[in-house]
Amino acid sequence: MSKLPRGTGLFLVVSAPSGTGKTSIYKELMKQCPHIQFSISHTSRPPRRGEVHGRDYFFVSRDEFDVMIQREEFVEWAENYGQLYGTSRAVLETLAREGDKDVILDVDPLGAKAIKDRYPQAVFVFILPPSFEELKRRLTMRGQDDEETISTRFNHAMVEINEIGWYDYVVFNDDLPDAVSLLCSIYRAEKNRVMRKKTEINKFINGR
Amino acid sequence: MSKLPRGTGLFLVVSAPSGTGKTSIYKELMKQCPHIQFSISHTSRPPRRGEVHGRDYFFVSRDEFDVMIQREEFVEWAENYGQLYGTSRAVLETLAREGDKDVILDVDPLGAKAIKDRYPQAVFVFILPPSFEELKRRLTMRGQDDEETISTRFNHAMVEINEIGWYDYVVFNDDLPDAVSLLCSIYRAEKNRVMRKKTEINKFINGR
Repeated sequence: MSKLPRGTGLFLVVSAPSGTGKTSIYKELMKQCPHIQFSISHTSRPPRRGEVHGRDYFFVSRDEFDVMIQREEFVEWAENYGQLYGTSRAVLETLAREGDKDVILDVDPLGAKAIKDRYPQAVFVFILPPSFEELKRRLTMRGQDDEETISTRFNHAMVEINEIGWYDYVVFNDDLPDAVSLLCSIYRAEKNRVMRKKTEINKFINGR
Repeated sequence: MSKLPRGTGLFLVVSAPSGTGKTSIYKELMKQCPHIQFSISHTSRPPRRGEVHGRDYFFVSRDEFDVMIQREEFVEWAENYGQLYGTSRAVLETLAREGDKDVILDVDPLGAKAIKDRYPQAVFVFILPPSFEELKRRLTMRGQDDEETISTRFNHAMVEINEIGWYDYVVFNDDLPDAVSLLCSIYRAEKNRVMRKKTEINKFINGR
């Protein structure tokens, strides 16, 4: 099990099933907490308009992705709707080495579990919609999917939500500013854990 | 080991040696977080002008306090400058039963350790002045104590600070509003731990 060196940045692992409104949360969080950055995933899907390689994703071919899987270069990877997405071990290790950077990793519960196995000091947050009815409403109101697709998304969300028990924190996304401010509070609290402030504490104690 | 019933309030145990500015922090925290209340201690010292029995302290005679010690009615107690202070088990159990109340317990590390043994789910915060020099300056600038008293207070503070290792969080009180806002963030984050939101999560999952 690799351990982060002391005093390094924080890995904030967030899982948010479809319908939780995570895109809006992340956008607002970046404004409120400029110190946090996203861990950039690899993907086999082609870039959408406006997406930049190395900023939004590392775009690679499916073959390249497969080779990376075989070489065990991913901490976690998953196939969603026919496309591969993964978190590269090298990307995380670089971030961990840089030390003062805090990153958000947006991964599903399976990926989050793999990250927990490797980085037990990471912090795990699950985002939930305010209620079961609201989840159903949000998945339906997109209006672009047929009933079967909606039903599949819904069942998938519920399977994911059943994993919440081993997460550290839950954020109910009822009101966007509230949810973001709670996520910021979690981040701020975790940054000030005694185990993450050892350098400052030792400096204090040895200051006399 | 007594366990708090599920879904009860949060016990926020704060230790802050002399010179950390805790009185100002608590005063401001009560304004910002009206949900939190102080656990009321028992003391053998006589009330000061303006202090109210049952609001500031439960004022008892030294004999009464001694009887309570013998009956093991305190979770923790200590003697400071010739006066006895203690946290009554009955007070805490009542708060724990009431369920939705969150309390701050202001106790020294010895008392905090006793509370941790009994209530492992409590959250432990240590407040530190911004630096060793500042601690010294704050203890000296009161201007009402002789050098020996200052030296005793200082050494006592350093003995307490050496206990910080087993606390959950550290708050450096450099800037008062910042320190209070961090304490609020810690409180808010801890309130949203998955283990403390079991009722809401189960309600969500069983809502279908």
